[in-house]
Amino acid sequence: MMAIGFKSSCRQGGIMSSSNDSCQKFTREEMVGPEVLEESGEKMSKKAAKKRAATLKKRLYRKKEREEATSSSSSLTEDESFSSNYGDVTPKSAAGRSWREAVEGKELTDVSNLVEEIVGSEVSLRGRVHNHRLVAKILFVILRESGFTVQCVVEEARVGTSMLNFVKQLSHESVVELIGLVSLPKKPLTATSQQVEIHVTKMYCLSRSLPNLPLAVVDAARSEADIEKSVKDGKPAARVLQDTRLNNRPLDLRTPANQALFRIQCHVQIAFREFLLSKGFLEIHTPKLMAGSSEGGSAVFRLDYKGQPACLAQSPQLHKQMAICGDMRRVFEVGPVFRAEDSFTHRHLCEFVGLDVEMEIRMHYSEIMDLVGDLFPFIFTKIEERCPKELESVRRQYPFHSLKFLPQTLRLTFAEGIQMLKEAGEEVDPLGDLNTESEKKLGQLVLEKYKTEFYMLHRYPSAVRPFYTMPCEDDSNYSNSFDVFIRGEEIISGAQRIHDPELLEKRARECGIDVKTISTYIDAFRYGAPPHGGFGAGLERVVMLLCALNNIRKTSLFPRDPKRLAP
Amino acid sequence: MMAIGFKSSCRQGGIMSSSNDSCQKFTREEMVGPEVLEESGEKMSKKAAKKRAATLKKRLYRKKEREEATSSSSSLTEDESFSSNYGDVTPKSAAGRSWREAVEGKELTDVSNLVEEIVGSEVSLRGRVHNHRLVAKILFVILRESGFTVQCVVEEARVGTSMLNFVKQLSHESVVELIGLVSLPKKPLTATSQQVEIHVTKMYCLSRSLPNLPLAVVDAARSEADIEKSVKDGKPAARVLQDTRLNNRPLDLRTPANQALFRIQCHVQIAFREFLLSKGFLEIHTPKLMAGSSEGGSAVFRLDYKGQPACLAQSPQLHKQMAICGDMRRVFEVGPVFRAEDSFTHRHLCEFVGLDVEMEIRMHYSEIMDLVGDLFPFIFTKIEERCPKELESVRRQYPFHSLKFLPQTLRLTFAEGIQMLKEAGEEVDPLGDLNTESEKKLGQLVLEKYKTEFYMLHRYPSAVRPFYTMPCEDDSNYSNSFDVFIRGEEIISGAQRIHDPELLEKRARECGIDVKTISTYIDAFRYGAPPHGGFGAGLERVVMLLCALNNIRKTSLFPRDPKRLAP
Repeated sequence: MMAIGFKSSCRQGGIMSSSNDSCQKFTREEMVGPEVLEESGEKMSKKAAKKRAATLKKRLYRKKEREEATSSSSSLTEDESFSSNYGDVTPKSAAGRSWREAVEGKELTDVSNLVEEIVGSEVSLRGRVHNHRLVAKILFVILRESGFTVQCVVEEARVGTSMLNFVKQLSHESVVELIGLVSLPKKPLTATSQQVEIHVTKMYCLSRSLPNLPLAVVDAARSEADIEKSVKDGKPAARVLQDTRLNNRPLDLRTPANQALFRIQCHVQIAFREFLLSKGFLEIHTPKLMAGSSEGGSAVFRLDYKGQPACLAQSPQLHKQMAICGDMRRVFEVGPVFRAEDSFTHRHLCEFVGLDVEMEIRMHYSEIMDLVGDLFPFIFTKIEERCPKELESVRRQYPFHSLKFLPQTLRLTFAEGIQMLKEAGEEVDPLGDLNTESEKKLGQLVLEKYKTEFYMLHRYPSAVRPFYTMPCEDDSNYSNSFDVFIRGEEIISGAQRIHDPELLEKRARECGIDVKTISTYIDAFRYGAPPHGGFGAGLERVVMLLCALNNIRKTSLFPRDPKRLAP
Repeated sequence: MMAIGFKSSCRQGGIMSSSNDSCQKFTREEMVGPEVLEESGEKMSKKAAKKRAATLKKRLYRKKEREEATSSSSSLTEDESFSSNYGDVTPKSAAGRSWREAVEGKELTDVSNLVEEIVGSEVSLRGRVHNHRLVAKILFVILRESGFTVQCVVEEARVGTSMLNFVKQLSHESVVELIGLVSLPKKPLTATSQQVEIHVTKMYCLSRSLPNLPLAVVDAARSEADIEKSVKDGKPAARVLQDTRLNNRPLDLRTPANQALFRIQCHVQIAFREFLLSKGFLEIHTPKLMAGSSEGGSAVFRLDYKGQPACLAQSPQLHKQMAICGDMRRVFEVGPVFRAEDSFTHRHLCEFVGLDVEMEIRMHYSEIMDLVGDLFPFIFTKIEERCPKELESVRRQYPFHSLKFLPQTLRLTFAEGIQMLKEAGEEVDPLGDLNTESEKKLGQLVLEKYKTEFYMLHRYPSAVRPFYTMPCEDDSNYSNSFDVFIRGEEIISGAQRIHDPELLEKRARECGIDVKTISTYIDAFRYGAPPHGGFGAGLERVVMLLCALNNIRKTSLFPRDPKRLAP
């Protein structure tokens, strides 16, 4: 298995090495106390022992805390003695030197790894000031890192007045590094993802944020349900609008849901590649700059290429087919696709990441459907297995149910789909395309009848497919083509391609394409071409529909639509 | 481990299942003969037994051949009895039906899997007519598939005159499917990659190529040494020029060296991802369409984006940094990069595949160099391990020695590099950049002194690095930056970036950049930014230098340079 390990990240080993290197160490007797040792014997369950150890560690730790607080208060008159414990790290600042000395050799611990088991350890953390709140002479700072949060306690009695004031005036979203002791809070925490708290001894600021931000990450992370509740409670919370989010994407990306979505996106690609490489596919890269237009469509971005008219590829279609003509047999590509369409829908972008596949076929286009029918359930299963925390983070802000799919992907012919719609009283053209509404309706009917939200429709009418689609052998009104749907929305389009150059040229002409502009493409088939086909999907759309989100802009890192070209 | 398996491709299991399903089966006695069984006993080594079995199988097979030839010659008067054994497969042709019936349920065998161990089996093969030659009434057809070749024997006595004539007039590069018996040739074969031959019983043509091709694959596959030898021998062989190759790339891609190069390229990416994912990196996709220019350079492709001036990203630099500001911590991207430079060198393209990395750093830019120093040797090692056949295929046409690199990547400061050049009598500006010639020279000096062709040069003069490069803390004339070299050519450029917005703005202005055009980029740092850095490499250049090729166009599937926009 390929190592995935977002959890075993750069900071891996951090906890263990820091707890070994620098945390206070307790003997077993110190930890549990003699009276407990006596009553426990060797039969105590592992879990119970762990729990008891934690409780007693906590008791012991509280005692240590009290002692330390007393001893440090005696020197509080000399506030300068704490001056090396905090400050702004800049290249030549004293705080920069102090920070270096303090953290040298100490690994950072991931906030997500701050758990009860390491209570008593000293840890170094890096993250952002998510929020803070002063209660009496204690400052509670919520530190956030990669979407996880932990409560950090800064006590004046422990760190001195100057350091408390330094921390207090750090603006939200500033990047800080701190050293502190992991301890158990007096009561369960509701505002943080982690159930331990950190008693801070040192804190340095690596980068200050502006005090007034265009959006607050806490607001951007709020679910619709929480907003509605706040309105009912008479204390309406802020709702961050989509454009505000996208205009300030580096801030918006910091919410737990967004942190999770782009990890899920990465894992969709990992599973996509893993499956295809195991089936003998080769990953290729086709050019995005080309003469002519990829598929004869009008919605292309045009540009001047050193004096030649050029355009951006609307799909890798022509080149992935040429790769097949170049004997590459089975290829795939993950790369940008450009569409200059004026679509302001929830599911269109002007630039998206295409997941494209092309393969030789032996006898029938069903071989391509076999592959799709195995590939996508593989991806869905891997995401459930590998991203449970991420799915949970998305759900907290955008609740959704897991996709229902069958072990053997359902296949219906287009005609069968039309029949189902007709029987349900829908008016549909049997040789036309399905509109978005009919697709949604059919999705409902299929879910009711077959209990799946993932299925294929094949043998589409030739008239609604691109010129290069192979007509059915028995009826040229239909074609060797298919679409795949998730939750009632089209996600994949695929087909067998025409590999006979004469037929290809004829079909191009019938579709009004200037054959000269695609002559190198058609020529590729004159040099001998095996029967082949393939399909394409959009990565952003896969993630959107997997998580049942309402807008594709949520799953594009920096989305491009007809109005949006920045950031 | 991730499954790589180009070998265990779509046709996997083909050999075993076809030999089980449909080949002539021999009992052990039939195969070895009673007298041999007697003399062999149970002590014969496995290898010897195998060899003997093959020899005897061959003997038996020849006998069967003779019998079959005799029996078929008796019915040769009725040539029609063979008519279902060959023909052009078109949707409604009789040959199409015959082909379907003949191959139904029979897996294809990869040509590379045709080895002595399966002599006697019946196999189905798909490939191209690479060459043919008629000797008396026997036609020798070389079948090629994925760069591997096998000799196929079509005997008139076995298949009839009409089928022989059908096969004889198939043009080179036509795609055929055939059924035949694997046998041992009478003498070793020099013209094919495989050392068995196929006695053909059925052959169907799936796609005919034009009889006159713009280039012959045999010519395109010839090494320079072979061409020189042919000249010396007074029979000069054709040399296919680069432009002819690139104009007809689907044909050119079929040579064994090209088949291998794009597998190696795929494996470079696999190893790149594998390493980074294991270190907690996240794969992202940044937009290629953007307002302004990526790095303030002049060599950008400009276009109209729905009425707004736009350009194609010259690198994912700004967006990968914004991803870091969005708390993604460690990211990488594999995607197209566009440079409108007028470079006609052997190492520049107008569009290439960027391998880009960006990461938070803890204390020092050396952390980025640590990563690079481990990542690339990991890639080199994996390619050696996973692509031995591919490296061999490349070497046969373009001989090269394996890259020399150290287990611990060598690091020199720019000043040390300058010193080495000076000592060797080169004149170089200590605060300027190295030109290509000086880089080559330094590569030689490093190889002589340190025995490595892979090393890093760091602490470059600030004046020769982009505006966003972090200056050195101790001397702002130098920067926290590095370049990496393979065989004396620059392959990677990396640095720590400025994360302080004020310093960034100041440096942008000093470099003559209109700060307004990059305001969303600079703003990202005003919302708190961790120290970070990264690097970029070009996939095509990595493969070119790994295989010591002389031109980057060889490692781009469909290269784009100032004159080339097609195919």
